[in-house]
Amino acid sequence: MLAAGSREFATDQAGVVLVIRALPVFSDIELAARRIAGEAVVTPLLENVKLNGLVGGRVFIKAECLQRTGSFKFRGAWNCISKLDPAVHTGGVVAYSSGNHAQGVAAAAQLRGVPALIVMPEDTPEIKKANTKAYGAEVVTYDRATESREEIANHYTAKRKAVLVPPFEHPDIIAGQGTCGLEIVNALQGRGIVLDDMLVNCSGGGLTAGVALAFSEKSPSTKVYTVEPEGFDDYARSLRSGVREKNPRSSGSICDALLTPQPGEMTFAMNKGRLGEGYAVSEGEVRRAVRFAFETLKLVAEPGGAVGLAAVLSGKVDAKARNTGIILSGGNVDAALFCEILAGG
Amino acid sequence: MLAAGSREFATDQAGVVLVIRALPVFSDIELAARRIAGEAVVTPLLENVKLNGLVGGRVFIKAECLQRTGSFKFRGAWNCISKLDPAVHTGGVVAYSSGNHAQGVAAAAQLRGVPALIVMPEDTPEIKKANTKAYGAEVVTYDRATESREEIANHYTAKRKAVLVPPFEHPDIIAGQGTCGLEIVNALQGRGIVLDDMLVNCSGGGLTAGVALAFSEKSPSTKVYTVEPEGFDDYARSLRSGVREKNPRSSGSICDALLTPQPGEMTFAMNKGRLGEGYAVSEGEVRRAVRFAFETLKLVAEPGGAVGLAAVLSGKVDAKARNTGIILSGGNVDAALFCEILAGG
Repeated sequence: MLAAGSREFATDQAGVVLVIRALPVFSDIELAARRIAGEAVVTPLLENVKLNGLVGGRVFIKAECLQRTGSFKFRGAWNCISKLDPAVHTGGVVAYSSGNHAQGVAAAAQLRGVPALIVMPEDTPEIKKANTKAYGAEVVTYDRATESREEIANHYTAKRKAVLVPPFEHPDIIAGQGTCGLEIVNALQGRGIVLDDMLVNCSGGGLTAGVALAFSEKSPSTKVYTVEPEGFDDYARSLRSGVREKNPRSSGSICDALLTPQPGEMTFAMNKGRLGEGYAVSEGEVRRAVRFAFETLKLVAEPGGAVGLAAVLSGKVDAKARNTGIILSGGNVDAALFCEILAGG
Repeated sequence: MLAAGSREFATDQAGVVLVIRALPVFSDIELAARRIAGEAVVTPLLENVKLNGLVGGRVFIKAECLQRTGSFKFRGAWNCISKLDPAVHTGGVVAYSSGNHAQGVAAAAQLRGVPALIVMPEDTPEIKKANTKAYGAEVVTYDRATESREEIANHYTAKRKAVLVPPFEHPDIIAGQGTCGLEIVNALQGRGIVLDDMLVNCSGGGLTAGVALAFSEKSPSTKVYTVEPEGFDDYARSLRSGVREKNPRSSGSICDALLTPQPGEMTFAMNKGRLGEGYAVSEGEVRRAVRFAFETLKLVAEPGGAVGLAAVLSGKVDAKARNTGIILSGGNVDAALFCEILAGG
């Protein structure tokens, strides 16, 4: 297990420093913020009168669905991939992802001028596959139930002499996602507002680790919580037991972005001392949140991007008389599923 | 005809100054900005890499669908209604509107603590009727083809001793909508960017008049243009002929927010010297823009709110190597129509 703040450096054949085994520290988020400036969107932190009225408190919505590639994932991907030298890293990058990291990596690789190969599950939403290809990446699909995405990705990484860009187990990825938390704190501090609770949609824990790191430094009184779909609440159970628990299933939720089988080793090492108990929301609560985002917020949220909103709308997180932060972490949803959800109202 | 800058004042029974016949000047927008601060949303001005790539220029998107009540209309409504005194104006307000002004007025009246009666067409989207009622307003419907909304509204205004809040022919309304333009200029000037072209979704011309007034003062090199649905391009034709032309039909477009029969007298007096030629977009171009907003921008745009986006996406407005501003002016669309549009891709 890695200790917080421990750092091991390595350099590649070009002499580029690639931090391969280290937990990021707060200054890494500040560096990441400078690195992504001008390429990533400083997404708005929105407030909605109707939502505030419904919960009886103030809810601040970080609209990461408005981020480049439609989710927060571009932050970490660009923080990592912008370091590569197209003249040296001719093998480009390889990544595995259910879809949002795929798009983030593909767009970042295209921007940096290096090739990208992405390993994606066969059942990922069409919009995510199509967008990943549109960013110029090669897509290889696999069966979630019977194949290991890590093995396939490792195979291609070795074959191509590529750089593997994991979805969360990498300090540059975590620091990049942490810029989302830093922006939230910065936007609120300018207005003299301190969050009581910060909810983070959680899968492997990279966004959570980055956001919790940012808040631990800049807004230590804020409690950070994970939100997951019911049946895929490995992080919440791991936080309770103290060890990395696994989900019983690898598919079967509309929250396709949040189905990682267990917490990352690196993210869990960072998160376990920093987080409050985790929350889990039902599919019905998620569907209601997606509808609410359409009808009231006028934002397109994918199911996995709406779990934090679902937690406050359902009352599972009591936002009454409190300042609560949520992240609409992505908006990459197929029209067919979106309209099925809207019709279900 | 009113001359620009002419002002006639009147006071009501409480001694409140109600400017009833005057063209607003720039300082009215600055006053309005102070009046709506804290209640209206300073909506984000967004840029999307994919959209920029498609048109070959920079497009700045003012996301007024994220405004309180889901359209820019709250700006003017609150600028007007916040002046009322609930102890004196017990008759409250009356308005006629296809739906977005209705919601803006209803929400502003609720906030101010005065009653509201809104005259709406029978065929207005359900979401607009439901929201207007949810803000506590009484709704009276009429037939667009056979009845006059002005007459019905005048009847109730007299009967209730209410204040009529027209959708665009009022200096407070125009100045309120102008805050949208002021925010666009302010956001860009901080970054050293000047718009070449500013496209404004146009119906009666209130938003256009306010935005054009703001730009004429703060960014005079920017050309301001109207965008309307084909078949309802009364403003474009009026700008060409120099007199207020009428539309041949009063219904029959998915752009329900943009079907005002002719330019307002006040708005046309302000606009005719300030605007370039107007644009009109087809229903197919609007549908494509709504889909693009869903798939790529992750924003919910109603058809009438997407005509400016349609103009740049279709190439009718050449945005190549230019800085172009557009307004997604509203997002109040029924799920059924929205999904029919998405399915039409």
